[in-house]
Amino acid sequence: MSEKVQPRTLPGFMELLPNEQILFNKMKEIIQKSYEKYGFLPLDTPIIEDAKVLLAKAGGETEKQIYRFEKGDNDLALRFDLTVPLAKYVTQYYDKLSFPFKRYQIGKVYRGEKAQRGRYREFYQCDVDIIGDGKLSIINDAEIPSIIYNTFKKLGFDDFTICINNRKILNGLFLSLELENKSAEILRIIDKIDKIGADKVKAELLNDTHPDKIDTIMKFITIEGNNCEKIKSLEDMNIDNEIFQEGLSELKEVIKYIKIFGVPEENYKIDLTIARGLDYYTGTVYETFLNKYRNLGSVCSGGRYDNLVGYYTNKKMPGVGISIGLSRLFFQLVDNEIISASKEAGFDVLIVSMTDEYEACAEIATKLRESDIRVQINIEEQKLGKKFKTANHLNVKYVIVIGEDEVKNNVVALKNMLTGEQQTVTIKEAIEVIKDVK
Amino acid sequence: MSEKVQPRTLPGFMELLPNEQILFNKMKEIIQKSYEKYGFLPLDTPIIEDAKVLLAKAGGETEKQIYRFEKGDNDLALRFDLTVPLAKYVTQYYDKLSFPFKRYQIGKVYRGEKAQRGRYREFYQCDVDIIGDGKLSIINDAEIPSIIYNTFKKLGFDDFTICINNRKILNGLFLSLELENKSAEILRIIDKIDKIGADKVKAELLNDTHPDKIDTIMKFITIEGNNCEKIKSLEDMNIDNEIFQEGLSELKEVIKYIKIFGVPEENYKIDLTIARGLDYYTGTVYETFLNKYRNLGSVCSGGRYDNLVGYYTNKKMPGVGISIGLSRLFFQLVDNEIISASKEAGFDVLIVSMTDEYEACAEIATKLRESDIRVQINIEEQKLGKKFKTANHLNVKYVIVIGEDEVKNNVVALKNMLTGEQQTVTIKEAIEVIKDVK
Repeated sequence: MSEKVQPRTLPGFMELLPNEQILFNKMKEIIQKSYEKYGFLPLDTPIIEDAKVLLAKAGGETEKQIYRFEKGDNDLALRFDLTVPLAKYVTQYYDKLSFPFKRYQIGKVYRGEKAQRGRYREFYQCDVDIIGDGKLSIINDAEIPSIIYNTFKKLGFDDFTICINNRKILNGLFLSLELENKSAEILRIIDKIDKIGADKVKAELLNDTHPDKIDTIMKFITIEGNNCEKIKSLEDMNIDNEIFQEGLSELKEVIKYIKIFGVPEENYKIDLTIARGLDYYTGTVYETFLNKYRNLGSVCSGGRYDNLVGYYTNKKMPGVGISIGLSRLFFQLVDNEIISASKEAGFDVLIVSMTDEYEACAEIATKLRESDIRVQINIEEQKLGKKFKTANHLNVKYVIVIGEDEVKNNVVALKNMLTGEQQTVTIKEAIEVIKDVK
Repeated sequence: MSEKVQPRTLPGFMELLPNEQILFNKMKEIIQKSYEKYGFLPLDTPIIEDAKVLLAKAGGETEKQIYRFEKGDNDLALRFDLTVPLAKYVTQYYDKLSFPFKRYQIGKVYRGEKAQRGRYREFYQCDVDIIGDGKLSIINDAEIPSIIYNTFKKLGFDDFTICINNRKILNGLFLSLELENKSAEILRIIDKIDKIGADKVKAELLNDTHPDKIDTIMKFITIEGNNCEKIKSLEDMNIDNEIFQEGLSELKEVIKYIKIFGVPEENYKIDLTIARGLDYYTGTVYETFLNKYRNLGSVCSGGRYDNLVGYYTNKKMPGVGISIGLSRLFFQLVDNEIISASKEAGFDVLIVSMTDEYEACAEIATKLRESDIRVQINIEEQKLGKKFKTANHLNVKYVIVIGEDEVKNNVVALKNMLTGEQQTVTIKEAIEVIKDVK
């Protein structure tokens, strides 16, 4: 025999066992159906793009992490998100699309990050974006939390909070304090308030900023109360800055419409400390937390951007969108035992033969499949015990056993693997029992 | 403004408009559901693999076409099919899987072929395989055509033929004629019989083989009749070769069971001229043709292989499987106007506001979505005419128009975009109408 190659999967690349994959796919499908319910159209852009096109705007970390290589004369790169391909797409096909253009895309993206537990180099992003031609109503920004709400409800979660802020409020505040050049640094410190508390944030801010200004910032980030009260407090701050007031007015509109879009009060709140990075977002921003597992970080984030396509065209195309990092989320949920794949089955019935009644197995399998039941048949020369072990291993709910007597009497032995109960029934009855509890 | 990058999609990479993507996804989902009905479990292996692992067996064309590159110290490659990743997977997770292991995988694969119309460098393959541990019953080879049959029926086709052969019959025949060293060349010539006819095949074969042997080959490849008659003719040839007889016996078993698995006689036939390449397959082989579009080539092919994992382990794991090259198939079907995406809609209703009744729009959208209707709302400041143009462009069946009167009377104007009919109804009635015809 020739020398063997040791098979391995690269670190940072998720590869699941079948029952885990079934659960993963269920989540993916729930997200897809939820996105479709909001009228988003599917896209599926290539994973490989012209590096020059993909990196038109990129720099810094992205540039370092990207998978970039040559093939023939082509300088190629793997997409690192689904937003740049969307920008490319709406520019290329502008004349063939209707605006506002609503698309979802669920696909793998690639970042050569340092491999670590729960961080992937290949991972699924599930994105929705609404792209306007020239302008885009702020009401869209209120529909987005409704999508998040419905998606996470369908995924089986109740206790989660969609946190909403508006970058213009932050930017306006910093402008009014003449701190716009320090905003990155200040936001970085503010971001730690959950971990280190208000006092330590204040101490850090005091390092190189005037105490009066810090007081205003502290007053701002410690605004308490329900959404109405927070808006009231923001108004009462009387910040004399146009951008601040524009952001406040947008936030009020978003909060008003979220309710009309059916999101319960307990599932969203204004959170003045979230900013979502520094450059990209320009208005509304979102983060979503599972309240009992706040340590997982945001499980769905996004926001409003002024211009999606600036590096490709002079057209102005504002947008608003969100992304779920499904691979990481799935890992976290399984790792924290919030979900489990241990009972997932890929089909409904395993048909096994006691002796060699293979023709009957094939016939019955065909009938069940015609009734839309998912059937695997095992026609191997294996012991019956081994076949039942397989049924258990695959978490299948029903096993149909065929022996000489069953064939003679035109019946099947139908075993419920959860209860252990076994009954002898006709094929028609078996179909009814199986479909009943599917 | 900064300098603009011209966006483009690389040649050989499929990128669809939304309505085309909707149709493509429908086909993909039909294939997936069909595979699941046969009890196959989902896999989703990485697109990037260790080049050494991926290329363990490869050579020749594969080696040239592969996307291979370095990142850090890693020698990486993009998968060029879904079979090698399956071999890797069953070797790695052998202890955690039940055998026979039935998996489906639908995903993109990469081959840097010369770009030409309808040939893609990134394309979807939709594979099912059944992998045995040590051995695998021949009855599995008969279940495969049933999967092909059901899948293509669900895809909307009736007039197609699954052609079945067994490599052992060919190999045994060549062995009995002491032509095994010339088998590649002979198969290449035989393969042309459809195009050039039996006489020219014979003339080509005569170039360097003894006429008596050619007579036997010609007798073999021109065997006519229905499946029973063909088997009878094969038996009557009295080929004194163990491998030939083994292949014949396997073929008889497959033909017997295909019928039991519910495939109508008109949808399959023995075709002694198909061979599916030279090295890989070792027993049953399949090709599938749309009879009215035979020129498209085989739309679903596969077969039985002795050993999936020989380059990774000494375990013996025979398998049988098929693959649908969905990207190419989709291109061909659209290009030949066999299918069309021109009426595909991604959602059910577009809600538009005549004036600025945005709150009512949001409220109604929410109610419809709660009834599982897919709704897009247009709350932009656009003329009503433009909004209707969008509805037409997106092929949506219903438009709901909201004006002051509708809000006052708590009704909606529901327009059927196919018939042009418009009615004023309550939201409850609208939901009933829309769900009725979905």
